[in-house]
Amino acid sequence: MSEIILHNYFRSSTSYRVRIALEMKGLEYTYVPHHLRFGEHLEPSYLAVNPQGFVPALIWNDGTLLVQSLAIIEFLDETVPQPPLLPADALGRARVRMLSQMIACDIHPINNLRVLTSLRTLYGAGDDDVANWFRHWVNETFQPLEKILAESKDTGTFCHGDRPGLADICLVAQVVNNARYNVDMEPYPVISRIAAACLELPAFIKAAPKNQPDAE
Amino acid sequence: MSEIILHNYFRSSTSYRVRIALEMKGLEYTYVPHHLRFGEHLEPSYLAVNPQGFVPALIWNDGTLLVQSLAIIEFLDETVPQPPLLPADALGRARVRMLSQMIACDIHPINNLRVLTSLRTLYGAGDDDVANWFRHWVNETFQPLEKILAESKDTGTFCHGDRPGLADICLVAQVVNNARYNVDMEPYPVISRIAAACLELPAFIKAAPKNQPDAE
Repeated sequence: MSEIILHNYFRSSTSYRVRIALEMKGLEYTYVPHHLRFGEHLEPSYLAVNPQGFVPALIWNDGTLLVQSLAIIEFLDETVPQPPLLPADALGRARVRMLSQMIACDIHPINNLRVLTSLRTLYGAGDDDVANWFRHWVNETFQPLEKILAESKDTGTFCHGDRPGLADICLVAQVVNNARYNVDMEPYPVISRIAAACLELPAFIKAAPKNQPDAE
Repeated sequence: MSEIILHNYFRSSTSYRVRIALEMKGLEYTYVPHHLRFGEHLEPSYLAVNPQGFVPALIWNDGTLLVQSLAIIEFLDETVPQPPLLPADALGRARVRMLSQMIACDIHPINNLRVLTSLRTLYGAGDDDVANWFRHWVNETFQPLEKILAESKDTGTFCHGDRPGLADICLVAQVVNNARYNVDMEPYPVISRIAAACLELPAFIKAAPKNQPDAE
């Protein structure tokens, strides 16, 4: 058993997700920053660690490489069960995974830096075009997400009941990221309320981009 | 308890994933097609079922709406445990979820019809541009995916050992989709071998796009 290492980047919202989960589980880890805008994640030394060259990548204490933020978080939840990040019942877990994947599959990948960079290089998109693209895909998913959260009796202080979990982790990381592109949060009172509740909790604060060692 | 209903579209690769899982679990379901190119998924009658307007959406036999293909498949796996679609150990599950999410998060969302359509309408992309975009994001992930599968002792006849599971479901749906855009599979012998092994199994054949009632 050796230490847990997190290869990550302060501003990466998928890194933020994993940092929150590590904090909630009370796991100590070594923070290894990779500056995405300088391409540090594509250096051979890092590609030898993670062939995909993405952050976050977690080196578990037995040396195993884990990538993909949701897979990492579910692993942490199975390995360190308290506090649980998923509900105990199958339908509840399906709902929390659904809410999480609405963000993790339907927003984040399309708005990731590599895609925004491709819009610039392939199609000459400027800053306004990129910001509009970002906001468009957030709104496309936040509209149904707000409706689902507002109309469900399963929604509580947090996305699912009164305990923060996987869906809240994804939601907060996206909401914090949205601020960089001035997404109008007025149409999303339930999402905003849940994000605000999370951002009062120590794990979410400690894991926040601005509180990381590589923050600018 | 009433019937299971799957809102889907023959060509949708996320629908294909859920169909494979339903077949593997031996679950009967009612197939409700929505023709995405005609916008049938955005009609008010369907938005009342699924506010996100996406397929697949599964109505479970208690009436609960389940969306997001990976969330649906994990629910099916928890509810009907045999045959298992995830390994029994936490590290194995993390690996299978990682492989699945490399496809489900890093390829599919960026190559989804709504994004390709946006490239056409916002940037005047033509058929060749769209095909290049599609192939680019497949290759960006298939290169590390091939490497991970080729170098791991956990890889067997299928992505994880000798039993098909969640990662194989995602892999096959992507490989079948790739054929529409002439992705060169020559650099991916392990991925190709695994996909071929899957495509000999009855569940994968029965769920294939060309074998659905709405296939053109």
